[in-house]
This record gives sequence, C-alpha cells and structure tokens, in this order.
Amino acid sequence: MDRQTAPLEPPPQRTFRLLLEYDGSDFAGWQIQARGRTVQGELARALEIFFEEPICPVGSGRTDAGTHAQGQVAHFAVRSDQPNYHILRSINGLLPKDIAVLELAETNADFHARYSATGKRYRYRIHLGKSALYRKQAWTLYHSLDLAVMQKAASALPGAHSFAAFCKQDPVPDSFICNVTSCAWQQLDRQLIFEIEANRFLRHMVRILVGTMAEIGRGQRPVEDMARLLDSGKRESAGVTAPACGLCLLWVRYAESQGGE
Amino acid sequence: MDRQTAPLEPPPQRTFRLLLEYDGSDFAGWQIQARGRTVQGELARALEIFFEEPICPVGSGRTDAGTHAQGQVAHFAVRSDQPNYHILRSINGLLPKDIAVLELAETNADFHARYSATGKRYRYRIHLGKSALYRKQAWTLYHSLDLAVMQKAASALPGAHSFAAFCKQDPVPDSFICNVTSCAWQQLDRQLIFEIEANRFLRHMVRILVGTMAEIGRGQRPVEDMARLLDSGKRESAGVTAPACGLCLLWVRYAESQGGE
Repeated sequence: MDRQTAPLEPPPQRTFRLLLEYDGSDFAGWQIQARGRTVQGELARALEIFFEEPICPVGSGRTDAGTHAQGQVAHFAVRSDQPNYHILRSINGLLPKDIAVLELAETNADFHARYSATGKRYRYRIHLGKSALYRKQAWTLYHSLDLAVMQKAASALPGAHSFAAFCKQDPVPDSFICNVTSCAWQQLDRQLIFEIEANRFLRHMVRILVGTMAEIGRGQRPVEDMARLLDSGKRESAGVTAPACGLCLLWVRYAESQGGE
Repeated sequence: MDRQTAPLEPPPQRTFRLLLEYDGSDFAGWQIQARGRTVQGELARALEIFFEEPICPVGSGRTDAGTHAQGQVAHFAVRSDQPNYHILRSINGLLPKDIAVLELAETNADFHARYSATGKRYRYRIHLGKSALYRKQAWTLYHSLDLAVMQKAASALPGAHSFAAFCKQDPVPDSFICNVTSCAWQQLDRQLIFEIEANRFLRHMVRILVGTMAEIGRGQRPVEDMARLLDSGKRESAGVTAPACGLCLLWVRYAESQGGE
C-alpha cells in the first residue's frame, strides 16, 4: 500500500489509574445506578465526552451515599494517544465541582483498582456539639463521650477476625474475615477522629464499628462488647450504623508491582 | 406594698460573650445589611426570637462575603435569668446550619468584642489543582508556586508597619498601622497555608497580602516587592485581592482581665 491509502494506525490501548477526591454530600454513592447522581456515573459521563466512546471506570470499592473520599482509586482502559496532563485537565473540567481527579497516571494492563488493592484506610469524624464548617463531614453528637473507653474498645479490633456483626449482610459477602492492621481514636479540639486500616472492609463496617463504640463511649454498653460481638457475629447485637457523612476514604494501597506505595 | 401587688423584679442585666463558627459561603459577610443574608443578621434574629426583644450582637470585626470563621467572637447584653446552657442550645437550634455557637459565657459589663480585642489570627488556604472537598474553603490555583520565595516575602511583614498598600481604602481607616506578631506559609499535601497574627487587620488586608505573595511565588514580581509596598503604601502597586473563600478567622484574643486567653 502506498502512504495515501494506508489505514490510520489506531492509538495504543492504555490503562489509566486515577486518584479521586469527592464530596459525597450530593451523591447516591459511588456505584452507577439507574436513578440518582453517582460518582462513577459522573466520571463515566466525563470520560465518554472526552474519549468519544463509552468507558466504565472501575473503583477500588463502593462508598455509601453521603460518604466522602480523599483518595479513591479507579482505573479504565482506552485507546488514546493524548498526553496525560491533557486528559487530567480535560476530565477535571468536564466533571462537576464535587469530584476532582488529583492524579492520573498510566499503569500496566493488569492493574485492577479493586482486585489489586491490598489495603485501605478510612477516617470517621464525630463532632461534639453543633458545627457549621464540618456539618456535612461529621456525625454531630450533643452528649459527651469517654474517649479512653472508646480507645479501649477499639483495641479489640486489630488482627484477622470475622466482622459479621459489623456488616450489613445484604448481600451476604463471600467472607466476613478482615485483617485490621491499625485503628485508633484521637481528639482534635471538638472532634473525635477514628482512623482504621485493613486489607478489606465489609459493607457499613466502619459505620457500625463507630456506632457501637459511640454507645460504649456514652456508657450504654460495656467495653467488653466489642470482643463479644466479634465472637458472636450477630449484627442485631451491635450498635447503630453511624451516619455516612462522617466517613471518608483516605487512601487505597496497592502492591509496589502495581505502582502502589 | 403587700406581696400581691409588688411589681415583679426584673431579671439581672447580663453581658454574654459568644464563640462562633460559620461557613461564610452563603453569607453576604458578617455585618447586617438592608439586603442579603448576613451572620450578624441571622444571629440577631435568633436572639430576638429567644429573648423576645430586639438584640444587636457586636462582633470582633467584619468578615467579607464568603469568608469563614472558626473563632469569631461577639457580645450582647440582655436582662435574663436563663441558664447559660439553655441559651446556648436554644440559640443553636434557632440559628441556621451554617452558623454554630461553640461557647457562650457571661462576661463583665465592660467587655466589648471589638474594642477589647488585642489580637487576631487568620488562615488563608490555597489549593494546588482542583479540589472537591475544599472547593469552598480555598483559592484554587492551577500553576505551581515557589513556597520558599513566598516564605521569604512573608518575612518582611512582622513588626509594626503601615499596611496602606494592602488595604481596601474605602472607607479610609483611622490608621494604617498594624503590628504583625507572626506569619508563615506551610505546605500540607496539595495545600499552601498562610497564617498571620496581628493586633488588628485592615479591610481586605490578608487577601491582598496573599494575592501579592502568590504573584511573587509564581515569579511575576520580585520578592523585594513586599518591603517596597510597605514603604510606598500604594494599593495600586500591590497584587490582586485573593478570593474571600480561602480566608478563615481562626481566633480573637482578649486581655486576661476580659476573660481572654
């Protein structure tokens, strides 16, 4: 063939990894739905406009309606020869104000935001008394809580356990076993902050853990309940599910071979 | 007079000091206006409903439309024998979600939120690149800034100077002299944070200081400009007024005799 009639070479297939921040307040959660504004849905819409083909980004996991993320990770694959910085700026421009792409990088083709993840860290924020600036990013409580007792309750969590009692069992997951590698409460001024790191999390897990520890901190249940609940696995014996707005996904960890830290 | 006809003794006159937090996003600033939703206006409305008489709270100073506060101070005087915790909770319930009374305490009758103040601290936040969670609490910039150079620019500020070049001169203030007791830039992840403490601040002062230092950090003006501007006093030679939403009043200081820290 001469140059005139040679077919255009298609751009290379590339896999991109995104670091995402979002304000969950006005989303019906991460996962795309038939109805309701979702983070995945808005991201898919922006990618489709930019790349002019339907693209479904895959996240490291779902976040609930109202839950925020400072470090959600997603991936997608597309044939494109656009420079990375141009994709990043364009997607940010196409996305609404409450989703930001913090980083975009090309990764290897077998990277999978969900299956390649080796750990995650969440933060849960309780605000003691009314707050104006944190009203959409904290669970506001109007009574006092005993932080030392809550810290003692949290000390039952590290290690590999069944978290069946701290899980919305709908649908029932393949396994209830999670390995909590660290967790702790701290007080910052009027805020009680709980951070927890594990290899995986079950649905509503952090919110039920926090709801139960808040009941312990208020003196409504004994501190020994945490260990008992881990043993019994009975969701109905655990505490309330703390509101979604207090929760924020801080980061997702990947093995180094997957471009992780 | 016998007991039946004795007039009711009026409750004692008391002066209250409030510590306020507000999300300035949806306010036309602190000061009450003929039109527009203001923090002082909403507070006056809540106080009038609770105490059943018109009360005008006095703040430590105005904040601009869009500017936030974590520690604004205000005072008001009223005849009341209600317990403090009851006033605090009721006022919080009557106020909208974007204003919170963090503390309420009785103070001496000569306390004045504005005239008794001996110092204030502000924070200004720049976010490098798009942010979802800080979009209403930061100035978003899409280019890099040289933090070391901005820190050097800031080092010209401590001490008592005329800040005429860094002031909206409408209306012209009684004095341009402010004593800056400390100021510094720091980087936290994708944020550049400037904190500044002084005995008093002029209108738009922090915003024009930050706007000018951002131009220096981008290489658009020499670092020596800060000292030159302090000397010249020419507003038109200084930089842009940084957006109000990046600014937050952190605290107001009072002499110990006024119940301050």
